[in-house]
Amino acid sequence: MVLVRARNPNNIGAVARAMHDFGFSDLRIVNEYSVSFETAKSAVDASEVIAKARVFGSVAEAVADCTMVGATTAVGERALEHPLHAIVEAAVLMKAECAQADGRVAILFGSEKTGLSNEELSHANFLVTIPMFEHEDVRHPSMNLGQAAAVCLYEMVRSAGVHAGVGVREAAKAADVERVAVLLGEVLDVSGYRAKHANATEEEMRRLVVRMGLKGTDVPVWMGILRQMLWKARGGA
Amino acid sequence: MVLVRARNPNNIGAVARAMHDFGFSDLRIVNEYSVSFETAKSAVDASEVIAKARVFGSVAEAVADCTMVGATTAVGERALEHPLHAIVEAAVLMKAECAQADGRVAILFGSEKTGLSNEELSHANFLVTIPMFEHEDVRHPSMNLGQAAAVCLYEMVRSAGVHAGVGVREAAKAADVERVAVLLGEVLDVSGYRAKHANATEEEMRRLVVRMGLKGTDVPVWMGILRQMLWKARGGA
Repeated sequence: MVLVRARNPNNIGAVARAMHDFGFSDLRIVNEYSVSFETAKSAVDASEVIAKARVFGSVAEAVADCTMVGATTAVGERALEHPLHAIVEAAVLMKAECAQADGRVAILFGSEKTGLSNEELSHANFLVTIPMFEHEDVRHPSMNLGQAAAVCLYEMVRSAGVHAGVGVREAAKAADVERVAVLLGEVLDVSGYRAKHANATEEEMRRLVVRMGLKGTDVPVWMGILRQMLWKARGGA
Repeated sequence: MVLVRARNPNNIGAVARAMHDFGFSDLRIVNEYSVSFETAKSAVDASEVIAKARVFGSVAEAVADCTMVGATTAVGERALEHPLHAIVEAAVLMKAECAQADGRVAILFGSEKTGLSNEELSHANFLVTIPMFEHEDVRHPSMNLGQAAAVCLYEMVRSAGVHAGVGVREAAKAADVERVAVLLGEVLDVSGYRAKHANATEEEMRRLVVRMGLKGTDVPVWMGILRQMLWKARGGA
């Protein structure tokens, strides 16, 4: 991540936090004048990223050791003299480059107000854009710096984390679903529901229960509930 | 987007901006006390989203007209009593739901400090998490609210038209799911089930009903069944 002429220390902090969140650590700042990191340092959880951040005097120096440079831009903001890739595509290129033995990728972000200059853009291999909604009344849409960084970094690690896979309850076995449906049928008989509803057939009630998409662990709960209802409907007190 | 107990107006503004950027407009705020939107209103480009934002007194009210509710969470933060989906998977489900005729999806975000309470989570169909890098020294990683919102919304619009024909029947609105849960609670009271099962709390029963994944057309059926049970349990003959 290379931040060029970022003005707001809060934004630098936000970018650092996003880097921390997604496991990146090499933050580079390009500024002609020295930047105060004081506010940025207070960014939650990002202290390590901020502590390691390096300041450079020019984009050329900041990307000197990189083998691929993507420059973020709002589309339509300037003459397109570079290939333009949506972040989805750009991330594919950048991940492939990172996988190379000496591959090292930089993503440039310009200042909040003016973006990147043509000189700064000239160091980039391609432009990267985050597709946004086109509002009729907004000419040059651009995202908040911290949010744009979060989206770019998320896209870089996205495919690695497709499956959270924790805590998904297993579906109940069909035999258990059937037990619930049968017991529900008994309750409907005893409560008088079935006498009133001709369409409450066994089949229809099974479909109703199947549509519940019962989890295995919910089966004993529903069985207990229905048994209690049955007991009560039969006059238990 | 439903923000629950968001404390920092800057974060509300950041979420509104991300919504504007990605073409969303329905922002809902759940707060016990009135929120000052003054700072939030200054959020660049997001004035329209903020102007349309609505404040609700509870999560139940905020999601009443929604047919699918995802609750964002940091993994490991709490006991997982819901299915947990990475945002990539969750977005597929949510986009499919949005494609349904009356499909309306809510994404819940908790407060910056405490996340969502168990009561608030109980209104959700599933949990949504943004996979992050696992730092050894950080126990409960969580993203900045505005950045998390940007990533979720980005994922929602990332690849338009991913959905296949999932489910012909339309999901029930959250308000109807709540009615079923409340009526089930009454039945459990009257039948004596609750007296025997200390863990059959209102929250627990809501989760049980939410997990049923009720279809809109099943709501009157279940309401009818439960009403009949209630009538019978109260001594009807």
